[in-house]
Amino acid sequence: MLLFPAAIETLMHELSRLPGVGRRAAERIVVHLMDSPPERARGLADAIANLRSNVRACARCGAWAEREFCSICADPRRDASRVLVVERPSDIQSFEQSGAWAGLYHVLGGSLSPMRGVMPEDLSVEPLKRRIAEEGVREVVVATSPTVEGDATAHYLAQELDSLGAEVARIGMGLPLGANLGYADPGTLKLALEGRRRWSGGE
Amino acid sequence: MLLFPAAIETLMHELSRLPGVGRRAAERIVVHLMDSPPERARGLADAIANLRSNVRACARCGAWAEREFCSICADPRRDASRVLVVERPSDIQSFEQSGAWAGLYHVLGGSLSPMRGVMPEDLSVEPLKRRIAEEGVREVVVATSPTVEGDATAHYLAQELDSLGAEVARIGMGLPLGANLGYADPGTLKLALEGRRRWSGGE
Repeated sequence: MLLFPAAIETLMHELSRLPGVGRRAAERIVVHLMDSPPERARGLADAIANLRSNVRACARCGAWAEREFCSICADPRRDASRVLVVERPSDIQSFEQSGAWAGLYHVLGGSLSPMRGVMPEDLSVEPLKRRIAEEGVREVVVATSPTVEGDATAHYLAQELDSLGAEVARIGMGLPLGANLGYADPGTLKLALEGRRRWSGGE
Repeated sequence: MLLFPAAIETLMHELSRLPGVGRRAAERIVVHLMDSPPERARGLADAIANLRSNVRACARCGAWAEREFCSICADPRRDASRVLVVERPSDIQSFEQSGAWAGLYHVLGGSLSPMRGVMPEDLSVEPLKRRIAEEGVREVVVATSPTVEGDATAHYLAQELDSLGAEVARIGMGLPLGANLGYADPGTLKLALEGRRRWSGGE
C-alpha cells in the first residue's frame, strides 16, 4: 500500500537526494511545508526554479553570476593583475569573508582525479591560461584543497602556467588559527614547518 | 557587498528556514543543485509546488489525501468501527508501518496548549464527535504524545467523548522495544508499571 499520497512520496524522494537530507529529514520538511501557509512552499519552489534560470557561470572567472560577469569581475576596484584559483564557486565566499584578497578569482570547476575520470580538459585550465596571457595577470595563487587531488592539481597548474610570465604560488598551509598543537596531525605540522616565515623580530 | 547572486541568497534564505537545515547545509544544497543537471532543480521545484496543490486534508479523517478521501478511509477492508486519534498526519505512517491497526484514523491537528494558544476549537474535536455519532464507531484509541500537552489532550477527549457510546482508550505506555532498563527514566517506569498486563503463563 502507498502510505503517503504520490505528491508527498515524490517530494520526499527528491528531498532525500539532497546532500545531508535523509528520509527522516525529508519527512520533517514535508510536515513543515504542509503545516505552513501555502506561500512558504510556493516561495521555496520559485527560489529553486529561479536558481538555474537566473544564475550562470561568469564569462571571465566561472563564479556564480547573474549577468555576463560576476559582481567581483565587474568591480573596477579589484586588482585584475592577481588571480586566486579555486576549485568551486562556493570557495570564493570563504576568501571574500576573510577580506584578505583584493584580486580576481578563477574557478577550475574541480580538481584532477584520474580515479573519478576528471582530466585536465574537464577543468577550466585553458581559459585560465588565456586570461593570464590576455589580461596582464602578474600573480596567480592556487588555492586547491590540501588533498591528494588538490595537490596534483596544483602541481599540474604550476607546470602549465610556468611559461606564461606570471608568478605562480600556492596558498600557504600550516596550523589553522586557534589550533591546539597537541591535536595537529604530523602532515599538517610538516607543512607548517615547510611554510615557516622568518620573523623580523624586535618591533 | 553581496557575496552570492540574489537568486542564490534567496534560495539559501528559503532553505535555511526549513527544519534541520542551517546556513551551511543550505549552501551545500545550493552547490549540489548548481552542479547537477538543471532537471534536478526543476524536479525538486515542481515537487514542492505540487505538494500544496495536490495534497489536501481527507474530508473524513484529516490525513493527507490526493482525493476527497485518503487511501485508508477509501479502503473498504478497514474496520470503520475503530478510530485511532493522532495529532498529526505523519503519525499515521508510523502506525501503518507497525501493521497493528486495521481501523481508521482521525487527525486532531495538534494537541491542546493554552501556552501556545491552542484551544479545543483549534483541534478537530467536533468532527471526531460527529464521526462517532454518525459512523457507528465503537472504539476510539487516543494516541496523543506522552507529553504534558498530549496528556491534557487525551484527558479532554476522554471527557468529551464519554457520553457518545464508544469505548475510549489511550494507547499503552511503557518501555519501548529493546530498551535498556538501566537507562529508562522514572516516569516511563511508572507508566510501565501502571500499564502492566497480567501474563496468563503456562502456554
